[in-house]
Amino acid sequence: MANVQRIQNVAKRVVSYKKKGYTLVVVVSALGDTTDELVGLVQKITAEPSEREMDMLLSTGEQISVALLAMAIHKLGFEAISFTGAQVGIITDTSHTRARIIKINTDKIKEELKKNKIVIVAGFQGVTLNQDITTLGRGGSDLTAVALAKELAADECEIYTDVEGIYTTDPRIEPKAKKIKAITYDEMLEMASLGAQVMQARSIEVAKKFNVPIHVRSSFNNRAGTMITKEVKRMEEVVVSGVIINKNEAKITICNVPDRPGIAAIIFKELANRGISVDMIVQNVSHTRQTDISFTVNKTEARKALKLTKKVAKSIQAGEVLQDEDIARVSVVGVGMKSHPGVAATMFDVLADSKINIEMISTSEISISCIIKKRFAETAVKALHDKFGLGK
Amino acid sequence: MANVQRIQNVAKRVVSYKKKGYTLVVVVSALGDTTDELVGLVQKITAEPSEREMDMLLSTGEQISVALLAMAIHKLGFEAISFTGAQVGIITDTSHTRARIIKINTDKIKEELKKNKIVIVAGFQGVTLNQDITTLGRGGSDLTAVALAKELAADECEIYTDVEGIYTTDPRIEPKAKKIKAITYDEMLEMASLGAQVMQARSIEVAKKFNVPIHVRSSFNNRAGTMITKEVKRMEEVVVSGVIINKNEAKITICNVPDRPGIAAIIFKELANRGISVDMIVQNVSHTRQTDISFTVNKTEARKALKLTKKVAKSIQAGEVLQDEDIARVSVVGVGMKSHPGVAATMFDVLADSKINIEMISTSEISISCIIKKRFAETAVKALHDKFGLGK
Repeated sequence: MANVQRIQNVAKRVVSYKKKGYTLVVVVSALGDTTDELVGLVQKITAEPSEREMDMLLSTGEQISVALLAMAIHKLGFEAISFTGAQVGIITDTSHTRARIIKINTDKIKEELKKNKIVIVAGFQGVTLNQDITTLGRGGSDLTAVALAKELAADECEIYTDVEGIYTTDPRIEPKAKKIKAITYDEMLEMASLGAQVMQARSIEVAKKFNVPIHVRSSFNNRAGTMITKEVKRMEEVVVSGVIINKNEAKITICNVPDRPGIAAIIFKELANRGISVDMIVQNVSHTRQTDISFTVNKTEARKALKLTKKVAKSIQAGEVLQDEDIARVSVVGVGMKSHPGVAATMFDVLADSKINIEMISTSEISISCIIKKRFAETAVKALHDKFGLGK
Repeated sequence: MANVQRIQNVAKRVVSYKKKGYTLVVVVSALGDTTDELVGLVQKITAEPSEREMDMLLSTGEQISVALLAMAIHKLGFEAISFTGAQVGIITDTSHTRARIIKINTDKIKEELKKNKIVIVAGFQGVTLNQDITTLGRGGSDLTAVALAKELAADECEIYTDVEGIYTTDPRIEPKAKKIKAITYDEMLEMASLGAQVMQARSIEVAKKFNVPIHVRSSFNNRAGTMITKEVKRMEEVVVSGVIINKNEAKITICNVPDRPGIAAIIFKELANRGISVDMIVQNVSHTRQTDISFTVNKTEARKALKLTKKVAKSIQAGEVLQDEDIARVSVVGVGMKSHPGVAATMFDVLADSKINIEMISTSEISISCIIKKRFAETAVKALHDKFGLGK
């Protein structure tokens, strides 16, 4: 019933836009429990499902949503037509469960828009040239929306989520967190890659590449959310836009790695070949013939990564391999950093004042990340949020 | 969980055939509760869903089944690949919810069979030339199986059901009912059109047209079921093969219809135009200038039919329109009837002996049907089953 109400709410909102005269293409994801139920069935059948068949299975989730939404819009007296990814012609490569969009044929959509219909497209899915159904992986529905917005030269791409927009930090941790009115693609990208959950980096990358304005907003109210665009004109210069916390990573350290050229390549090539994404990498400056290399991976891949790393460590005659899941990454992000060299120092100061030890440091042009013990995560976020004036 | 076990059982059976060296194409229908759940969602949204969107929605049921079955077969160590109706290229007309197959492209299936894979096809569904998803209506999965068996020149088409085959009558009514070993397409067609639930007439029609041998058998055991073929060689001549009971019809009678040419056409054209299937039609021999016309329709369409008939009756200046839902149709079927003119008389005798009044009679070349009061249905079935020696 909750699901039906959600669909009816979406239908009402879509119709309200249509009444204002907008030409609308709506991208829909699966109802939450549909996907969970399907995955539950799979788990009872096999621990290692074929990725092609997983895509075949899970793509039904969005197909159900689009059909129901079309019906709900019809019920409100408006014309609507639903399409699967395959029908629209969202052509992808053959990487099942994480396919990349190669091209989109918008003829069918344009044809229906000309008939004044609301077009509803199943997100998250596409089809290979061989007509196999694919899914786009995490954030796939957002990606479908951004890619369609680009192909259709839409004025704006609205992304509806269960939060009101992008916040200066996680409001569940810091109640003083503020909704950010506008943010640049680069900042959003950095936030997403550092663990901000609202949008996946790949959708932002596409939006940035083709300059598609994104409006991230709530499914539950009509308040303005966060605009993500190329440039943001701010009244006052903002150095840090947000503080991101990520507790989903594990740290792996290889001790006593022989310090000779090509060693790092051996380690990380092996991990990459097995499809494991490595996030932060830190190698200590070597003052002997040996060095320690630490890196972080997503916790879901930690076991696989540890096993592989131990094998590689042995082959390169390195020492012990340590794993630590009791960590959190806290990061500050802001385009203003480029012209404010003191941000890193301020961050380290704040953590020191809170008696928090820093285990790893990594920086990019517009972000600084520190790995700390997990139990200090909330304290760190609050202190940084306060210090950089984000709650004001 | 019950669903998962069913899928695993099907996988085991399929694999057992594969081990014997068969080349296999498996057509799967939706898990029972999937369809019910989806229809339940629709009912909460709209009472009159778009047929195109219903097909979009319900076709996910088979898509889920084929993917899960492929995974279950993989788990048993065999290669399998699933396809939707659209992927296989089951091209239909555009009559959503009751589409007719126009052609089937079997290239894709043959390609995968050559790779020694088990091919799993979603039943019940197809796609229009415009790439809209369609469903084939009742018995659609059987139709997919028979049509594929024809196109692939299969040796046999096995239809798995929840019963063990075709019975001489409904075993729930007459415990002496016997499973029929073999039956002709014509008899099966007659039985299906008279209300035998096991298979729909349209699948049998296709099987008959292209001479596809069908084996109707149980999903729950390995016993032989009923073979449906062109001709059946029987040791002894059988006059009547089965007794069929149908309680799903309603009788509508138009009284005092002016007896002039073209009147029947007016009535039944109107019903046909509104998509109402009329079953039995009986018109009394007229000895005045007026006559009564009675016909039966499916109960689900009775209200619509009654309303329409009243309108027509008025326009042709006929009298009262009566409706009776308290009826049952009892029929005997058998190719042997052609050469045994006494069957009708025997049937009427049996009913008379049981003190059952006959309200309508209708005959075809290989069947005789009588409409009687519903409360006599079981008595009639048992008496006829016994008289024609079907329990032996």
